[in-house]
Amino acid sequence: MTQSTRKTATLLIDCPDRKGLVAAIINFLVQQYDVNILNADQHQDAELGLFFMRVEFATEAAGFDELSFRTAFQPLAQQFQMNWRIELADAPQNVCLFVSQYLHCLADLLHRHQTGEFHCNLALIVSNHESARPLAEFHHVPFYYLPVGRENKQQVERQQLALLDEHKIDLVVLARYMQILSPKFVDAYPRRIINVHHSFLPAFTGAKPYHAAFARGVKLIGATSHYVTAELDEGPIIEQDVARVSQNDQLPSLIQKGRDLERLVLSRAVQWHLDHRILSYANKTVIFA
Amino acid sequence: MTQSTRKTATLLIDCPDRKGLVAAIINFLVQQYDVNILNADQHQDAELGLFFMRVEFATEAAGFDELSFRTAFQPLAQQFQMNWRIELADAPQNVCLFVSQYLHCLADLLHRHQTGEFHCNLALIVSNHESARPLAEFHHVPFYYLPVGRENKQQVERQQLALLDEHKIDLVVLARYMQILSPKFVDAYPRRIINVHHSFLPAFTGAKPYHAAFARGVKLIGATSHYVTAELDEGPIIEQDVARVSQNDQLPSLIQKGRDLERLVLSRAVQWHLDHRILSYANKTVIFA
Amino acid sequence: MTQSTRKTATLLIDCPDRKGLVAAIINFLVQQYDVNILNADQHQDAELGLFFMRVEFATEAAGFDELSFRTAFQPLAQQFQMNWRIELADAPQNVCLFVSQYLHCLADLLHRHQTGEFHCNLALIVSNHESARPLAEFHHVPFYYLPVGRENKQQVERQQLALLDEHKIDLVVLARYMQILSPKFVDAYPRRIINVHHSFLPAFTGAKPYHAAFARGVKLIGATSHYVTAELDEGPIIEQDVARVSQNDQLPSLIQKGRDLERLVLSRAVQWHLDHRILSYANKTVIFA
Amino acid sequence: MTQSTRKTATLLIDCPDRKGLVAAIINFLVQQYDVNILNADQHQDAELGLFFMRVEFATEAAGFDELSFRTAFQPLAQQFQMNWRIELADAPQNVCLFVSQYLHCLADLLHRHQTGEFHCNLALIVSNHESARPLAEFHHVPFYYLPVGRENKQQVERQQLALLDEHKIDLVVLARYMQILSPKFVDAYPRRIINVHHSFLPAFTGAKPYHAAFARGVKLIGATSHYVTAELDEGPIIEQDVARVSQNDQLPSLIQKGRDLERLVLSRAVQWHLDHRILSYANKTVIFA
Repeated sequence: MTQSTRKTATLLIDCPDRKGLVAAIINFLVQQYDVNILNADQHQDAELGLFFMRVEFATEAAGFDELSFRTAFQPLAQQFQMNWRIELADAPQNVCLFVSQYLHCLADLLHRHQTGEFHCNLALIVSNHESARPLAEFHHVPFYYLPVGRENKQQVERQQLALLDEHKIDLVVLARYMQILSPKFVDAYPRRIINVHHSFLPAFTGAKPYHAAFARGVKLIGATSHYVTAELDEGPIIEQDVARVSQNDQLPSLIQKGRDLERLVLSRAVQWHLDHRILSYANKTVIFA
Repeated sequence: MTQSTRKTATLLIDCPDRKGLVAAIINFLVQQYDVNILNADQHQDAELGLFFMRVEFATEAAGFDELSFRTAFQPLAQQFQMNWRIELADAPQNVCLFVSQYLHCLADLLHRHQTGEFHCNLALIVSNHESARPLAEFHHVPFYYLPVGRENKQQVERQQLALLDEHKIDLVVLARYMQILSPKFVDAYPRRIINVHHSFLPAFTGAKPYHAAFARGVKLIGATSHYVTAELDEGPIIEQDVARVSQNDQLPSLIQKGRDLERLVLSRAVQWHLDHRILSYANKTVIFA
Repeated sequence: MTQSTRKTATLLIDCPDRKGLVAAIINFLVQQYDVNILNADQHQDAELGLFFMRVEFATEAAGFDELSFRTAFQPLAQQFQMNWRIELADAPQNVCLFVSQYLHCLADLLHRHQTGEFHCNLALIVSNHESARPLAEFHHVPFYYLPVGRENKQQVERQQLALLDEHKIDLVVLARYMQILSPKFVDAYPRRIINVHHSFLPAFTGAKPYHAAFARGVKLIGATSHYVTAELDEGPIIEQDVARVSQNDQLPSLIQKGRDLERLVLSRAVQWHLDHRILSYANKTVIFA
Repeated sequence: MTQSTRKTATLLIDCPDRKGLVAAIINFLVQQYDVNILNADQHQDAELGLFFMRVEFATEAAGFDELSFRTAFQPLAQQFQMNWRIELADAPQNVCLFVSQYLHCLADLLHRHQTGEFHCNLALIVSNHESARPLAEFHHVPFYYLPVGRENKQQVERQQLALLDEHKIDLVVLARYMQILSPKFVDAYPRRIINVHHSFLPAFTGAKPYHAAFARGVKLIGATSHYVTAELDEGPIIEQDVARVSQNDQLPSLIQKGRDLERLVLSRAVQWHLDHRILSYANKTVIFA
């Protein structure tokens, strides 16, 4: 065995729950590609009658590549009415970070990438402010300053989309990017844009959630990472976390505690997405973590 | 010193924040009643310019009782525009528990009372179902079965209020009581009715919050204890807690995890209320815990 | 299909990790018993080269029962050097609760059983004190008072073992039972005795862990449920949880907070054990939850 | 009133608990310096009979400075046998960060300082490795590379102490500095050296705590920040936090989760220390937060 011929991949499936599914999938992989199953995880949504599966496998089969797999798996997929995708672990994904003036999430993601937590290529940083430039330069990530005003919003989005296209971006991370993306932009990257919202959704959607939480007198504040959809703050939730607050926490301290939460929920979402651990359906997510 | 003459009390104050407040209050207590300060806690709401204080003290002064204190403290209170109350630790408070068919909070409160966690007199249990009767009898708490229908709601409330009055109830605890109280009822016990809502308020107000949380795909579920006001689920929050859920938690398991949260947040609220640790203002609470 | 012929069972396996394991197991189940896989979960310990699997399945195969399964599965088990067990969901397990004077865990377990959280038969309660008798009677569980002194320890254990034997006990739960069981007792119920220790193990083993935690000035206290082994407090950990404490928590309040943790970690352990979700190996546990 | 004459300060006291303490302290401040009390917090250790107090106040009194306060307060302090200190909020404290090769805590502290979370002067970074130099330069903090071997340990400590002396360092933060400081070094900065240990102390003291936690099979991992004393990992605990782990967390993922905890507990400790919110006694801490 030469190491060079060994490939690993992740197969993600959702479909109506039916008898024989697990065996059919496992047998296909074993018979077709003589795989070694590294990890197999499944889940049922009893209420909706849905089945979800994630299989991570290794194979040394000569003929294994994405195209051949697609062709070979198609009949089985059709038979069981599967939504499915195969992700090969060969090339790191290209990621673009969007940020405005608050840099804590960006700094955190950049440091984690440097530490080796994320297996990806940080291809570029896009911002409507200049504040993030020094951090970008320190981490040697190309930085694009694209200021957004009322008049040029459409034009800037075209520039942004061209950049994403040019760099073959797989994932867009909104690391506290304070502009609302158009439905057209969102549609171009379905389940490929992750945002962090600084509240425990669905509480306190919209602007200034910390102010709203403070005014309501909650005893825990939260943060939420989610896929962006056309409806603001309504996309499938990926991760949430909370921290305890008390009367001793006036607004600034509440915001400070919130920053820690934002960092955590966003970085977990990014890592799970990069590891192909997230399946999204019916505006919810299944996390195979 | 004979132990019998020693009295302890708690003084709770909120008022506009002004220089000299702490000294004025402490000096009054020392000079008037030669107190031993057991605990003094204060808090400022910088935004609203408000000051909050809780002083727990012991005194052996011969003339100390609630009435004499009220008279003596009044001038200072007026000078600083205080909202204030004094709570003597002599007599345990009378508590009434309301419950419907879910008994987990009731069972928990009864057990905690038996264990000695609550310093109070569990005077009676009121329910619109018979389910709680065995538990009430096991704990030797008088049980009143008052079924509520569409037609007799007003009449039942009159009966309930009469019972509360007769037993000199200080605190009403809604331990999963599934009927909405009328504004008249609520007004009769301002900041003296504690409810538990099975969501992380303000998310998922109203009926079936677990179903709503499940449908939204949140990653944490919560429970909230709060004072009841005329507006449903909008009263001052006393305590909140959350638990992690995943796709493995279908509705029943989510409800089961929620029960643990409900028990915790309700019992903490009851204990803090009984210990006079809660100050409520502007639809928020200050917890001196 | 008649509902009466449908059986569900759980298969638990650990063995050296080898290629083809998943497929071999799944195919055996499908070909032999035409199963419907309700849940399949696996785990690898990369360091130790071990493979773990839990499969929950349903079958309507006429010949399916525990004995026939054992015979049919044996060759495959041997081939892959499996430790394995099959658990049929037909009969509820028999559980015996041991308790001393602190009743909070017992009361909690009894209430959860009543609520339907545990699918088991609470066969008996054994105690070295009389305190639990009223609770036992309220819940209609036979109560055995077996006081333990220095001289009669061996004799009492014999009585206890006879009781367990007589009631065909599957699981012993030490719900704050303050006597140390002999190695002989422990050996009679391997991985079938669950204890709750009131600390975050391995910190504060032995007696009076809350006192030790208070003296050390920790900022979080914990509780741990674990399988009992011959070495005190050293068995495989099943579940742990913690709560925040501060200088405001003197010993009594620390103990009170601890009680909530004990209830939670013990009840989770019991539930997972009853649902056959725990695999124990190398003094650790794998929880398929 | 000119803003320039207004000074704020924090008074921290511990002493035997005696009647009249609070009034005596408050009255001294009001009568001597006509203070405005911004915050007053007290605590009793009932078991040890100790009293603790933190008063944050503002004054415009002409004669107020540290020296005059020391002289004026001394008689009262003596009368009540106080340990006490006064901290004026005028000059930011000088902080020195020690680090080895793991940079996550350092990067976090530097970013928080940049964000404005810490009110201090980051005077220098000392390391036995070169790895942190780029980060230090990016944040414009002087960097001193002092490699430590078996032979030069004493000599390096002399250099380090000289640097701390030269920069008038108030606080030393060991941000994953993997060398053990000598008792002489520790004695030079009593309660002024904060360390982060990557376990939930007192569990897993010493080297490789994550490995030990993994081997023991704990269900939560922790991190602890504490003041350094002559005894390794035995100093007063300032803050602790934990994260849930499962069988899915092999060692690398456990270490990654731990890094997040280390950042949190260390940064909280640094902030509380800088804000004079920590009182240490009897190898414990009181946190006025």
